[in-house]
Amino acid sequence: MIRSIAVVGTGLIGTSVALAACRRGVAVYLSDRDPEAARTAAALGAGSAGEPPGPVDLAVIAVPPSKVGMVLIDVQRRGLADAYTDVGSVKTVPERCALDAAPHPARYVGGHPLAGRERSGPLAARGTLFEGRPWVLTPSRLTSPATLERGRLLAELCGAAPLVMASRAHDDAVALTSHVPHLLASLMAARLRDDPAGVSRLAGQGLRDVTRIAGGDSRLWADIIETNAPALAGVVRAVHADLTRLVPALDALAGHGGGDRAEGLRTVVDLLDRGIDGLGTIPGARPGPPEDTPALRVSVPGRPGELGRLLGAVAGLGADAESASVDAAEGGGFTVRCRVSPADADRIAAKLRADGWDAEEDGGDARIAPAQR
Amino acid sequence: MIRSIAVVGTGLIGTSVALAACRRGVAVYLSDRDPEAARTAAALGAGSAGEPPGPVDLAVIAVPPSKVGMVLIDVQRRGLADAYTDVGSVKTVPERCALDAAPHPARYVGGHPLAGRERSGPLAARGTLFEGRPWVLTPSRLTSPATLERGRLLAELCGAAPLVMASRAHDDAVALTSHVPHLLASLMAARLRDDPAGVSRLAGQGLRDVTRIAGGDSRLWADIIETNAPALAGVVRAVHADLTRLVPALDALAGHGGGDRAEGLRTVVDLLDRGIDGLGTIPGARPGPPEDTPALRVSVPGRPGELGRLLGAVAGLGADAESASVDAAEGGGFTVRCRVSPADADRIAAKLRADGWDAEEDGGDARIAPAQR
Repeated sequence: MIRSIAVVGTGLIGTSVALAACRRGVAVYLSDRDPEAARTAAALGAGSAGEPPGPVDLAVIAVPPSKVGMVLIDVQRRGLADAYTDVGSVKTVPERCALDAAPHPARYVGGHPLAGRERSGPLAARGTLFEGRPWVLTPSRLTSPATLERGRLLAELCGAAPLVMASRAHDDAVALTSHVPHLLASLMAARLRDDPAGVSRLAGQGLRDVTRIAGGDSRLWADIIETNAPALAGVVRAVHADLTRLVPALDALAGHGGGDRAEGLRTVVDLLDRGIDGLGTIPGARPGPPEDTPALRVSVPGRPGELGRLLGAVAGLGADAESASVDAAEGGGFTVRCRVSPADADRIAAKLRADGWDAEEDGGDARIAPAQR
Repeated sequence: MIRSIAVVGTGLIGTSVALAACRRGVAVYLSDRDPEAARTAAALGAGSAGEPPGPVDLAVIAVPPSKVGMVLIDVQRRGLADAYTDVGSVKTVPERCALDAAPHPARYVGGHPLAGRERSGPLAARGTLFEGRPWVLTPSRLTSPATLERGRLLAELCGAAPLVMASRAHDDAVALTSHVPHLLASLMAARLRDDPAGVSRLAGQGLRDVTRIAGGDSRLWADIIETNAPALAGVVRAVHADLTRLVPALDALAGHGGGDRAEGLRTVVDLLDRGIDGLGTIPGARPGPPEDTPALRVSVPGRPGELGRLLGAVAGLGADAESASVDAAEGGGFTVRCRVSPADADRIAAKLRADGWDAEEDGGDARIAPAQR
């Protein structure tokens, strides 16, 4: 159980941890290298600014990743807590520092709550920031079980889901899921400086989504990228290699320089298809329901509007009408197959039949063709 | 006024236009090189499959951009309509084709509704897809005023906002706002194939947003990229140049190859800062309210929780508490400034005063420091 914590660094993440802990009745002590920031966090109701009267149960180091190791050594020397963790986005560098130079490496476990905002500083903090998010813990070979347990308790206190990983696996994964995406968002956004007029008139949700994360604090992000540079370099080199093939492909398609158009088109299609494949690794990122849900089969007459009426009825019953497949049937009608959640299959089929549709569960052909992309 | 249209190509966009027109009482005739697709659109309630009995008021060519010119020549030869438009994402290539080879170039106006979905095909169509979206019209030097007017009426029929641009300006703008973002989303998503396990556990909203548009139909997108390659080549070359600087910068930061770390860090910070600048050209993409809204100034005592209580009260009154700036004041308290909408300034200041806060409108210092990023 955690009765007291010290939060070292009262920016967005540190203050959010402090607010969450305060709500659960934990005594929270706040400090920051800028005393005004700690005082602001205290005034927000995130705890008391200043040193605790004695060692707290857990110290939470909430400073940029390159500074975690240095701060850890300092607070362990001062005996600030029984156990120590941090909330930085990079885990191998602080772990190495803890193993090589901290007075009590067994009492440190790396931590990384996967939550953030484009705003930063204590005023942007939220006690609810971590709810339902993964909170990675990266015990080193020396981390004690009791210290890992404190890290896990902190994650749960904040409503997050603890997830234990090795620091190297964590850093490789966040390079792909967070740090390289940030760099690509910045690369795209940087190009918009070239044509503000056209951009402001035609910008849509796609552009906003691709560039949104480029709005983060550039000093903090530079620190993250610097600290995780070994993991990033390989991924960025692979992106660069793809672009090195894409530039002459576009030149060929544009009729510049005499390259082979067919070869250029193949390069573009290959990139787009690899992108679609890659999206398949993000849970829920590809449209359509999972393949293992049951299917309904409905026969629809060919009269104008009948197919629309059926799909409206299916959607109204809570099924995903858009993932339906439609095939021509004999006599000018259609056969519609759509996937429904297992809990709803019987109910939806019965309701469609009651409304006069020729509907049945599609047991004979469990794997149906995916909807047209 | 438009009483009848022919939609040539019943994919996502063509069928959505047809559904919107049907709802407004327009007679809609549907065709597709795949007769099954036109029959599906008709069964969805989007009109009648087949040729109109005589020339319609407007033909809407809804085929991939590289095919628009060829289809335009064919349907003009057949006398399908009094006026012709299209809905493709690229406008210079069809315009050149109309000017060089179409029987009636005066009767064609290029069109591009800026709306789409990751799903494609008639089943994904929505009559509401274009509501509130820009719909670019690109009249050529030969387009007649009556034809431009028909294009404008179609956009309005679909609930969109017509916007007249030159075809070249349109293609340059969408290269930046849509086509290069798609390529970068694909470049990022393609990398995810390297590490499915880590990705699926740690993927968050940022990654989903950066990669979302990579899920579009790869054949259609290859056609768009091929057709707009002249506008894309320059932008992609500039992205490539930025990456060519970034790769050695990351190597230096990773300690590979002996590069200069300080120089590497400058390269990273420069990219991040240019990205933040570029975001400023997208309306509403940067956090915080516009600089020209009035500010409120509130004095807050330094007691723990008081600042949180004030910001909660400000947010409860409908103001943007997160954009507040907080400065230390004499006597251990704080001075808080926050921007409010002009319509609300008086009401919010009065309510804060009524609740005991020392609040006033901040007339003397209209331009306050932006909140910490």
